[in-house]
Amino acid sequence: MRELDLLSHIYRANPALPDGVTIPPGDDMGAMAIGGAAVLVTVDQVADGVHVDLATTPIEKIGRKAITRNLSDVAAMAARPVGAVAAASLPTGFGEDRAEALFDAMRATAKDYHCPLIGGDISTWDQRLILTVTVFADADGIDPVLRRGAQVGDAVYVTGVLGGSLVELDSPPGYVHHLDFTPRIALARLLAGDRTTRPNCMIDLSDGLGQDLTRLCEQSGVGAELDTSRLPISDAAKLAAQRSGSPPWRHALGDGEDYELCFTAPPNRIPASVGGVPVTSIGRIIAAGDVARVTARLPDGKAVDMEGLGWEHRG
Amino acid sequence: MRELDLLSHIYRANPALPDGVTIPPGDDMGAMAIGGAAVLVTVDQVADGVHVDLATTPIEKIGRKAITRNLSDVAAMAARPVGAVAAASLPTGFGEDRAEALFDAMRATAKDYHCPLIGGDISTWDQRLILTVTVFADADGIDPVLRRGAQVGDAVYVTGVLGGSLVELDSPPGYVHHLDFTPRIALARLLAGDRTTRPNCMIDLSDGLGQDLTRLCEQSGVGAELDTSRLPISDAAKLAAQRSGSPPWRHALGDGEDYELCFTAPPNRIPASVGGVPVTSIGRIIAAGDVARVTARLPDGKAVDMEGLGWEHRG
Repeated sequence: MRELDLLSHIYRANPALPDGVTIPPGDDMGAMAIGGAAVLVTVDQVADGVHVDLATTPIEKIGRKAITRNLSDVAAMAARPVGAVAAASLPTGFGEDRAEALFDAMRATAKDYHCPLIGGDISTWDQRLILTVTVFADADGIDPVLRRGAQVGDAVYVTGVLGGSLVELDSPPGYVHHLDFTPRIALARLLAGDRTTRPNCMIDLSDGLGQDLTRLCEQSGVGAELDTSRLPISDAAKLAAQRSGSPPWRHALGDGEDYELCFTAPPNRIPASVGGVPVTSIGRIIAAGDVARVTARLPDGKAVDMEGLGWEHRG
Repeated sequence: MRELDLLSHIYRANPALPDGVTIPPGDDMGAMAIGGAAVLVTVDQVADGVHVDLATTPIEKIGRKAITRNLSDVAAMAARPVGAVAAASLPTGFGEDRAEALFDAMRATAKDYHCPLIGGDISTWDQRLILTVTVFADADGIDPVLRRGAQVGDAVYVTGVLGGSLVELDSPPGYVHHLDFTPRIALARLLAGDRTTRPNCMIDLSDGLGQDLTRLCEQSGVGAELDTSRLPISDAAKLAAQRSGSPPWRHALGDGEDYELCFTAPPNRIPASVGGVPVTSIGRIIAAGDVARVTARLPDGKAVDMEGLGWEHRG
């Protein structure tokens, strides 16, 4: 079963959504009007065996990721996090000490991002650990940046470096990107709060640049051309490439869980570094053909359709 | 591991919560200020093998319950639901048809209660089905009713009839209360919106009257005396009692998943029926002793401490 099929099934209901829904399902966050305020919402799950491995992942990093995965969606809207609720299903025999360490990490991470945990539901069951976190955000003076809005002629940018998010690095010691990444909230708000640098559209990279940029193009009704030689390739992607035998650019394009941002803006307006984080121009937005298609120029000069190169989420 | 131990661990952080949190963790919903509006939030899980049995429960009823469990929390605050997000982890091989039926039921139920599903996250894994729903609400002119606020001398009331929520009835055919119950939102808003009948405090009955009234008393710093002869005992509780050999009042006190409301108010103000639902006075609020204690007068005249009679959640 493909996740997108199901989501699109839910989204078919959009026309029936009431007026209060200001950002319908299908973006990084939904939004609705409550008491005159626009409230943005996102929900994400962290499951043992899918997003983390309880046997090998320090419990603090699991708690951290349960929060930061959501905060990456907040970043993708250039919104400001304001609060969170969490639900946990703990395996029987999980133990109170581990549970407390897990919740301490969730609470501390949420607090670090000014997103207090204000409630939750805890159950035990005979299955694996699963954490579900819902985060609320507001615009706080900066209009949310949507997935739609890319203009033909825009440059395509990514933050940070891409690929190999599951690979453990020696430096910093024990760093594993999918657990230790920094949600790009501050960067996104710097970009979107300035008229000169405001992105036309934005998405966070959770399923791999190939898939996620395709989504952004579909929602914007455009295509994109990428130059693989310009992709900012992480050290972890290079290590992953050594192990897999695939070229590093394939890891940067296809690996998931970068939790970086991909956005488009008119060319020559975005600095090479924003808030200390590198921002790289990797291609441009073109008119859509029959479908919103993303093509990549490979090192050998060939152009290939990126659809299908996308990394499938584990599990 | 006891759920309450973990929750109280989370709640120890209350003093550190920022000003924006208007109802801290520990009530049926939390609340925070977003853009000048108070937004109420609750999250609940429905897990196969814990709250439902996928092998025997119609898929539509599972989807329904995932929404209505949360709406019962909204009722307990006398709030108005405004929207929801859902996360689903589907077992491998669940099948697209069943998934669509599940989401259709969730979406239709949410819509019935003016609480549109505005987003979600769907994963598959090799474990059992689990659905996590987060519901948002606002006050819409009626101040939320909290768990704290019971006054010595208040009468204690419950809505509907209690006990046996897992028992399938012949009439209506196939009715199983924990799947088919009606969240008491309309009733709660009728009560709380009228100064004469406004409850001093309220909680929904998910873990059984014994446990949930104890919670309400703890948060209010009071005790309560119940008269078991006045408990509104459901037909299902009578059937359950025939099977278990326990007296029906024990099922009404101890069984969980009633999803009725328990509240306190000054005596002689509450009609016997509100919005077509029976409301029954079952006891009174007394001063707390050393602890917030709930005692029950049994049919034989003996008074027993209710703590420990509470029904433990399955799983």
